[in-house]
Amino acid sequence: MADWQKITGGITAPRGYQAAGITAGLKPSGLPDLALIFSEVEAIAAGVFTTSQVKAACVEYCRQRLQAKHSARAILCNAGQANAATGTQGYLDTLETALAVGQALNISSESVLVASTGVIGQRIKMDALRSGIPKVVAALSETGSDAAGGAIITTDLVTKSIALETTISERPVRIGGIAKGSGMIHPNMATMLAFVTCDAVVSPALWQQMLARAADRSFNSITVDGDTSTNDSLIALANGQSRTPAITELGAEAEKLEAMLTAVCQHLAKAIARDGEGATCLIEVEVTGAHDELSARQIAKTIAGSSLVKSAIFGRDPNWGRIAAAAGRAGVPFEQENLQIKLGNFLMLKNGQPLQFDRAAASAYLKKATAGAYLQQDTVLISVNVGNGHGSGKAWGCDLSYDYVRINAEYTT
Amino acid sequence: MADWQKITGGITAPRGYQAAGITAGLKPSGLPDLALIFSEVEAIAAGVFTTSQVKAACVEYCRQRLQAKHSARAILCNAGQANAATGTQGYLDTLETALAVGQALNISSESVLVASTGVIGQRIKMDALRSGIPKVVAALSETGSDAAGGAIITTDLVTKSIALETTISERPVRIGGIAKGSGMIHPNMATMLAFVTCDAVVSPALWQQMLARAADRSFNSITVDGDTSTNDSLIALANGQSRTPAITELGAEAEKLEAMLTAVCQHLAKAIARDGEGATCLIEVEVTGAHDELSARQIAKTIAGSSLVKSAIFGRDPNWGRIAAAAGRAGVPFEQENLQIKLGNFLMLKNGQPLQFDRAAASAYLKKATAGAYLQQDTVLISVNVGNGHGSGKAWGCDLSYDYVRINAEYTT
Repeated sequence: MADWQKITGGITAPRGYQAAGITAGLKPSGLPDLALIFSEVEAIAAGVFTTSQVKAACVEYCRQRLQAKHSARAILCNAGQANAATGTQGYLDTLETALAVGQALNISSESVLVASTGVIGQRIKMDALRSGIPKVVAALSETGSDAAGGAIITTDLVTKSIALETTISERPVRIGGIAKGSGMIHPNMATMLAFVTCDAVVSPALWQQMLARAADRSFNSITVDGDTSTNDSLIALANGQSRTPAITELGAEAEKLEAMLTAVCQHLAKAIARDGEGATCLIEVEVTGAHDELSARQIAKTIAGSSLVKSAIFGRDPNWGRIAAAAGRAGVPFEQENLQIKLGNFLMLKNGQPLQFDRAAASAYLKKATAGAYLQQDTVLISVNVGNGHGSGKAWGCDLSYDYVRINAEYTT
Repeated sequence: MADWQKITGGITAPRGYQAAGITAGLKPSGLPDLALIFSEVEAIAAGVFTTSQVKAACVEYCRQRLQAKHSARAILCNAGQANAATGTQGYLDTLETALAVGQALNISSESVLVASTGVIGQRIKMDALRSGIPKVVAALSETGSDAAGGAIITTDLVTKSIALETTISERPVRIGGIAKGSGMIHPNMATMLAFVTCDAVVSPALWQQMLARAADRSFNSITVDGDTSTNDSLIALANGQSRTPAITELGAEAEKLEAMLTAVCQHLAKAIARDGEGATCLIEVEVTGAHDELSARQIAKTIAGSSLVKSAIFGRDPNWGRIAAAAGRAGVPFEQENLQIKLGNFLMLKNGQPLQFDRAAASAYLKKATAGAYLQQDTVLISVNVGNGHGSGKAWGCDLSYDYVRINAEYTT
C-alpha cells in the first residue's frame, strides 16, 4: 500500500512554487519552447547529471552551481537547441541566460539553474531567448505546471507530469514533477530532463542522497535506444514551505519522503519509456534471484534495451530465446540452469529447460498491449529469475518500431 | 603494403582441407543447412567463443574439447536451430552429433568440433541431422568451400568467404575463412560463426594467441544491433600442410602469419557488418589520439553501435552531434575540447568547436554509399580524434533501417 495519494497540479502542487511555459521562437515548429520554474523562497537543490564525457554547457554550469551552493530559486529550460558541443561560446550563452533570468526575477543569478534540450551542436538562438525571458517571468503562475511541462518537450508525443501528497507530522507534504524525453534515452546518472519540486523541510545532504537513489531506481533504469544524452539532468528542489519538522537524518519520515520521491521519479521515467520514439507499448522487466539489486537492475536493463527483444515485441512475437540471450550478455554471472523466463503469465523457460506454452495465447497477450490508450494494459511484463539470491530490480523500455527509424532518419534535415 | 595476395578457394585454398554443404532438412526454407570442414591430418585448433552467460550446447562442448586437446580434424555446423537454452538434452544432442561425425569420417569423435546457428531454444532436428551426416561426408571435396559457406547462413543475404596467400621460407602459406552473421551481432570474444583454415606449421599456444588478438581487431570490433549471441564461435585450424618451418615463437614470420590471419578475420568481420540485417551501407569508424588501442576501439565500437548514429546515416543525414554524443558515453575519459569529428572528408568539429561545412555535399557523400554494389564506395567513413595519445582503433557497423525492424519483428512466427 502506497503511503501517498495522487493529486493534481504537477510541479506547482507543492506550496510556494510557480511555473510558466511560453513560445519564444526557439523551435522551428513555433510550439512552446521556454519554461521557467520558480520557488518563492530559496530551496534546497539537488541534481544528478549525464556521465557523458561530452557535456552540454548547461550541465557543466549546473554542476558547478550546485557544488558551490546546494540551493536555488529558479530553473530555466529551453527546448530546440541542446547547446552541447558548442565550445566556449555555448558556456557564455548559458552564463548570460542565468544573468538575464536573475535580473528579470530580481534574484541573484547564482540561484538560477539552466537546462537545454534539442539538437546537439547548435547554440541557443540568443536573440529569441533574450526577448523571451521577461515574457516567461511575466507568465509565472501557481497553476503553470502544464504550460512548463509542454514547453520542455521535443519529439515527445505527450507531456509527463505527476504530483503526490503524503502527511508528515499531520501536515501535508507534496512532491511534483515534470519530465521530457523520448529518444537518446539510456540515462547514466539521470534522464534527459526532469524537474521535481517538493515543499518538505529536508537537509541538503539527505535530499541529494535520496535523489541519487531514486534516480537509480527510475531514470537510470529506463532505456529507449541505448544512447545517453549530453544534456541529461534531473534537478529537485525542496523549499520547506510545508512547514513540517526538518528531516535531517534517516528514519521513518525520511523513508516516507524518499519513497514518495522514488514514486514520482518512477512515474516520470515510465512515462518517458512509454513515450519512446515510435513505441507502441511499455516493456517492464523484473529480475529476481540475483546477488544484489544492482546486478538485477543490470540484467533487467540489458533485456529492456535489446534491439532484438524490442523488435520481437513490436512484432508481437513471444520469442523468449532473445530474452535469454540478452540476460546472458548483461555482464552478470549466473548459472544458466537456474534461468526462468515468464512473459505475462506464460512460463516459457524453467531451470534452464524450455517449456511447452500456448504460443497463440502468448501472442494475443502481446497484442493486447498498445500504448495509445495509456491504460494499465499497455504494459508487457517480462519476469526473469536467475537464481536464489535476494537481489531484485526493475527496468523499463519500449518496443522498436518502423517509426523509431523514421523519426531518427529524418530529425535534422 | 600488404604482404599477401588474394586467391580463390576459400577454406579449401590451404593445402589438405576439404569441405561440403548440403540440405539436410533442418531449415524450414529447404535451403542448404549442414556444412562440414575436414582436415586430412590432425590440425592445431584454436577457438574464441561467446562470453554470454547463456551458452549454446555446442559452445560448451567446443570449449571443453579445445581445453583438453588443442587439435581437431573436423568442424560440423548446422543452421536452423541454435541448440541454445535447450538444457541437458541439447548437450546430449551435440555429443551424439560429434560421435556420428566421427564414425562417418572414421576418426575419433574427440577430433570433431560442432557449431550451431538458428532459433534459440530449439533443439536440432536430430532425425534430419542423423540422415544428413553420411551425405555431407560423401559430399566432401577440395572445392567445397562455397557449398559450406552457403550452408552455415541464416538471415544473411550473401555468403562470406576469403582466402589469402603469403610466402614463408619461399613456400606458399595460405589462410582461408568463411563466416555467417547478420543479426544479434555485437560479439564479445567472437562473432556469430567463423571458421578459418590455415596450412602453416605453428605451435598451438602461438596460434591461440594470434587468433585472440585477430578476433579483437576484427569480430570483436563489429556491431550490428548490440546483441551478443549465445552461439558466437570462431574456430581456426592450422594443419601444417604447407610444410614450412614451424613457427613457435614471436618474430618476423609469426608477425607475417598473424597479420594475414588478422586480414582474413577483418575481411569476414566487415562482410558480416556490411550484411547486417536491413543494412544499406557499411560504417567504418576510426578513432585516433586515445590513450591506448583498447580505449580507441571502445569509442569506435560505441559510435558504430549507436542507434541514433545508425538511423541518421540511413537517413543520409550528416548529424555529427550524435557522433559526439556516442563518443561521450563510451566510458573512456577524454577532454571534450580535444574532440574532432570528420565524416568522409568533411571536418565538422575541431577542438570541441563546431565548424561550418557544406551540408548538401556531406549528405551527397552519404548518399553515394550503398551496399548493393559491394564496392569500395559502400563505406561511410567516420574519423574521430580524442586527444594526443598514440592509441588508435577501428570498428565497423551498418546503418539502421526499416528492414532491420521488419526482419526481426517477423523472425519466428
